[in-house]
Amino acid sequence: MIDPKIKTIAFDADDTLWVNETIFDATQERFFKLLEQYVPEEVLRKHLFQTEIKNLKYFGYGVKGFILSMIETAVELTEGLVRGGDIQQIIDWGREMIEHPVENIEGVEQALKTLSQHYQLMVITKGDLLDQESKLARSGLADYFDKVEIVSDKTAAQYQEILNRHDIKAEEFLMIGNSLKSDVLPVLEIGGQAVHIPFSSTWEHETVAPAEESHHQIVAFASVTEFVKTIG
Amino acid sequence: MIDPKIKTIAFDADDTLWVNETIFDATQERFFKLLEQYVPEEVLRKHLFQTEIKNLKYFGYGVKGFILSMIETAVELTEGLVRGGDIQQIIDWGREMIEHPVENIEGVEQALKTLSQHYQLMVITKGDLLDQESKLARSGLADYFDKVEIVSDKTAAQYQEILNRHDIKAEEFLMIGNSLKSDVLPVLEIGGQAVHIPFSSTWEHETVAPAEESHHQIVAFASVTEFVKTIG
Repeated sequence: MIDPKIKTIAFDADDTLWVNETIFDATQERFFKLLEQYVPEEVLRKHLFQTEIKNLKYFGYGVKGFILSMIETAVELTEGLVRGGDIQQIIDWGREMIEHPVENIEGVEQALKTLSQHYQLMVITKGDLLDQESKLARSGLADYFDKVEIVSDKTAAQYQEILNRHDIKAEEFLMIGNSLKSDVLPVLEIGGQAVHIPFSSTWEHETVAPAEESHHQIVAFASVTEFVKTIG
Repeated sequence: MIDPKIKTIAFDADDTLWVNETIFDATQERFFKLLEQYVPEEVLRKHLFQTEIKNLKYFGYGVKGFILSMIETAVELTEGLVRGGDIQQIIDWGREMIEHPVENIEGVEQALKTLSQHYQLMVITKGDLLDQESKLARSGLADYFDKVEIVSDKTAAQYQEILNRHDIKAEEFLMIGNSLKSDVLPVLEIGGQAVHIPFSSTWEHETVAPAEESHHQIVAFASVTEFVKTIG
C-alpha cells in the first residue's frame, strides 16, 4: 500500500504515461539502414550514442538533439560523403517523430482516474518544451494533472527546487517512472518516495550500474495497474 | 510613472535582458557566406526564413530549430550538393551559439536592482528550455527574479495561464519586452499593461503590421533605464 503520508504523486511522461523509446528505436533502425552502404551498424550505433552524450549539454533531451546527433554521426562516419538527400531524410524523420500519434501505455488512464480521487497528481518530465506540451495535450490525460513541470534534467537538486516551489514536503511526495536514474534515485536522495515501473526499452544513457542501485531498496511494479491495486 | 495598481513586473529575456538576435544575425551571415558559391544571399535569406516559419510548429523557437532550418535550407537550395563538412560547420555554429557568453543589455542590472525593491519580478521567455536556463544562470541576473517561466510560445492564452497559475491579476501585471507581437499585444489583450523597449534588431517573424498595432496606445521607452526613471 501507499504510505499514508503521501499527498502528491508525480509521473514521469515518456515511457511512463505513453510510449516514447519505441519511436526513437524505430527511427534509429531506419538510420542504420540508411547508412549501411557506408558504415556497419555496430560502428554507427556506438558513434551515435557517443555523439548524443556529447551533445546532451548543448542540445538537451528530446527529438531535436537526437536529429542533430544523427546528422552529425552521418557526416562524421561517412567522412562527409553522406548525400544531401539522406540529411533531408533524417530531418523529415524528426518532424514525423514529433507528429507521431501519442500512444498511452495500457492501464494508465484508469490508474490516473483512480489516483486523482485521492492525490494531487503532477507530471515531471524532461525533453523539448513544445514537444512535451503537445504530447500531453494529445494524450487526453492533461486534465488529471494539477501541475505539469517540464524540466531540462532530473537531478536531486531539480526535484528539490520543484518541491520547494510548490510547497510540497519530500516525505509527502511519491514519484513514478520508468527510469531508475531520472525518476527513482534522485527522489530517494532528497527523502521522497519512488516507484519504478520499467518500460520494455530504456535508452542506454538512462541505465544505472548495479552498484548505484544497491544503496536503496527499490520499489518496483510491472505496470501502473499493479501499483494502483495496492491502494485498493 | 508606473500605474500604482501594478504589483508584478515581468521581463522578456532575449533582446530585453541580454543580447540575442545579434548572435543569430551573425550566424546567419556566416551561413550566407558558406553557401555563396552555390546560391545568392537573397535567395538563401528568403528560403531560410520560410523554412524557419515552416519548422516553428515542429521545432519551436531557439537555436536547435534554427540550426535544423539552416541545414534543411542548405540541402534544398544546393539540390543535395552541400558538402558534409559544411553541414558539420553549421552544427558547430549551433554549439558555439549555445556557449556564447551572455552579454547583458546596458542598464538592465541596475534597473532590476531598483525595481526588485518595489515589485515582484518575473522572467517570461520562449526558446529552448536548457538554453534559456543556462543563459539566465550565466547572466548573473537570476537572483532578481521571484519566478521564471520558460514557455513554448507567448500568446494571450499562455499569458493568462501563467497569471492564473501564480494568482496574479491582469490589472496588477506589467510586461516589458522588445517584441510587440510577443511581449506587448497579447498582454494588452488580456487586460494587463505592457512596455515596449525596442532592440536594435528584431527577427522578421516578430514584427507586426502597423494595422495590428493601431488598436492600442503602445507605451515605449528607448531603454530600461529610461523606463525606471519614471518611477523615481
